[in-house]
Amino acid sequence: MSEFSIIYKNFQHATPHHPHTILGIGDDCAISQMTSHHQLVSCVDVLVAGRHFPINTSPYAIGFKSVAVNLSDLSAMGAKPYAILLGLSLPTHYVHDEWLSAFTQGIQHICQQFNVELIGGDTTKSDILTISVTALGWVPQGQAILRSGAKVGDIICVSGEIGSASFALQQILQQQSSTLQSALDLPQPQVRLGQQLRHYAHSMIDISDGLAQDLGHILTASGVGAKFFLEQIPAHHILQQLPKQERWQHQLNGGDDYQLLFTMPIEKFYEFNQQHPNLIYPIGEIVADKGLQLFDEGKPIDFKIQGWQHF
Amino acid sequence: MSEFSIIYKNFQHATPHHPHTILGIGDDCAISQMTSHHQLVSCVDVLVAGRHFPINTSPYAIGFKSVAVNLSDLSAMGAKPYAILLGLSLPTHYVHDEWLSAFTQGIQHICQQFNVELIGGDTTKSDILTISVTALGWVPQGQAILRSGAKVGDIICVSGEIGSASFALQQILQQQSSTLQSALDLPQPQVRLGQQLRHYAHSMIDISDGLAQDLGHILTASGVGAKFFLEQIPAHHILQQLPKQERWQHQLNGGDDYQLLFTMPIEKFYEFNQQHPNLIYPIGEIVADKGLQLFDEGKPIDFKIQGWQHF
Repeated sequence: MSEFSIIYKNFQHATPHHPHTILGIGDDCAISQMTSHHQLVSCVDVLVAGRHFPINTSPYAIGFKSVAVNLSDLSAMGAKPYAILLGLSLPTHYVHDEWLSAFTQGIQHICQQFNVELIGGDTTKSDILTISVTALGWVPQGQAILRSGAKVGDIICVSGEIGSASFALQQILQQQSSTLQSALDLPQPQVRLGQQLRHYAHSMIDISDGLAQDLGHILTASGVGAKFFLEQIPAHHILQQLPKQERWQHQLNGGDDYQLLFTMPIEKFYEFNQQHPNLIYPIGEIVADKGLQLFDEGKPIDFKIQGWQHF
Repeated sequence: MSEFSIIYKNFQHATPHHPHTILGIGDDCAISQMTSHHQLVSCVDVLVAGRHFPINTSPYAIGFKSVAVNLSDLSAMGAKPYAILLGLSLPTHYVHDEWLSAFTQGIQHICQQFNVELIGGDTTKSDILTISVTALGWVPQGQAILRSGAKVGDIICVSGEIGSASFALQQILQQQSSTLQSALDLPQPQVRLGQQLRHYAHSMIDISDGLAQDLGHILTASGVGAKFFLEQIPAHHILQQLPKQERWQHQLNGGDDYQLLFTMPIEKFYEFNQQHPNLIYPIGEIVADKGLQLFDEGKPIDFKIQGWQHF
């Protein structure tokens, strides 16, 4: 069996078959049935070994995460995931049954979890492992949640603990084991919550580059400013034990959280909390003054905001 | 201006705005309006520098070709192109205005030519230039042309000259200049013809891996065999002057032609030719006996069929 056949064998029937798929893998393109009361939502993310994940990350986690980060983007629009297309550039030494099985299993498990189908792909040889995933999803006509909708007076919320992945990455890069490794390796995209927020949130983004930088995208797109109340940002109990400056570094400037960050009017916040208790956490508010003001237990704080930069 | 901003600046407004695009570049995802009488057609192709194009290929050609090969896949389904998403992994030494401008211009020109919009993208740093393009298109309900529809008695046709890109690549790899370089660098996807063939062709594929290997995909998917009449395969006059064995090598085993290869019943062939003269070239026929039989001026020929393999 050729190496290419191994890959094909691994990916065939790996993911759920979606009733909207007229034709999946195996022809020049996939064909999908559309409906006119939904809009198509699409995005692409590229993950490069040694840059987006440590080089010794397990193949299972690489497969899982490369899909998860894209489902997170769909979720940040309030969209329901439908399918992915996989562009895989693979060094020859990964082309064997053990690596490919684990990689495929990672993709398979997250696709099964969220009923996502692999409908297309291209595999090629390269000296650097590079995974490009395009995700497709749907949102009911006009109900997508954009970055640009934040209004002065909105409550700023997140969907869960922030900073765990950044802390885990630091430990791993220091050759330590980390009890938070799964936050880094196997992020859980907030697929359900993203859709639940459709009639509540004014604006939304997922946190990939860091809480502060991603909030910055909302502020710029919406033409507003914000206050953060740092003590309110949910943190894993391991992070709660860190010195504050160190915790803030992971929470504000770290990345790879894949939690949702969104804004909504206060009355919607109460309404949502009543209907879906304990899912969302208020951490700040939208104000008219541009920029980001930080407070810790009522006191203004000066802290250097950075963002994760590719270059 | 940061290097990332240069890239963003280059790609903003680079391509036509399509009325179906509700939201393009700049949020977590793009949003596109669907209609229920069309089906979505999607595909992804990954191009790696030094593997899918010579390392010294011009940035304009790299941009142009990475979109062209995907529009070729859409065309091979009879689909009308709509949009692309671009996943770009870029070595730092390419991140300057001159390279990026030329690369963007290549993408821009082919997108303008076929009214295709860049609706999403992700750019990251890598040591190897890798371009992953996802293309989206539409086909009227049920009118896509698959690989699997070839019938015994069908005429096999191609859309133009075969072997030019392979010959040009050979010359370039031998450090010669090539008058056929544009066939390799700037392939013209058969976008219009693909759609014109909708009510004519039984099966279709685009020629990327080589005429013989791509025909093999049709034969396997359709459960049939074929005869090729080698003297009928259109060739540029430079290839016509080569010794036959060498010409056949480029025409049958070369790749990167991005012409369409399709089959249709004889009566449809005559009908199409009457309506659209001089667009399609008959080169063989579909037969019940599995495998591919080659003939040159009526005589059976033995010739080793290879395919372009990634591994």
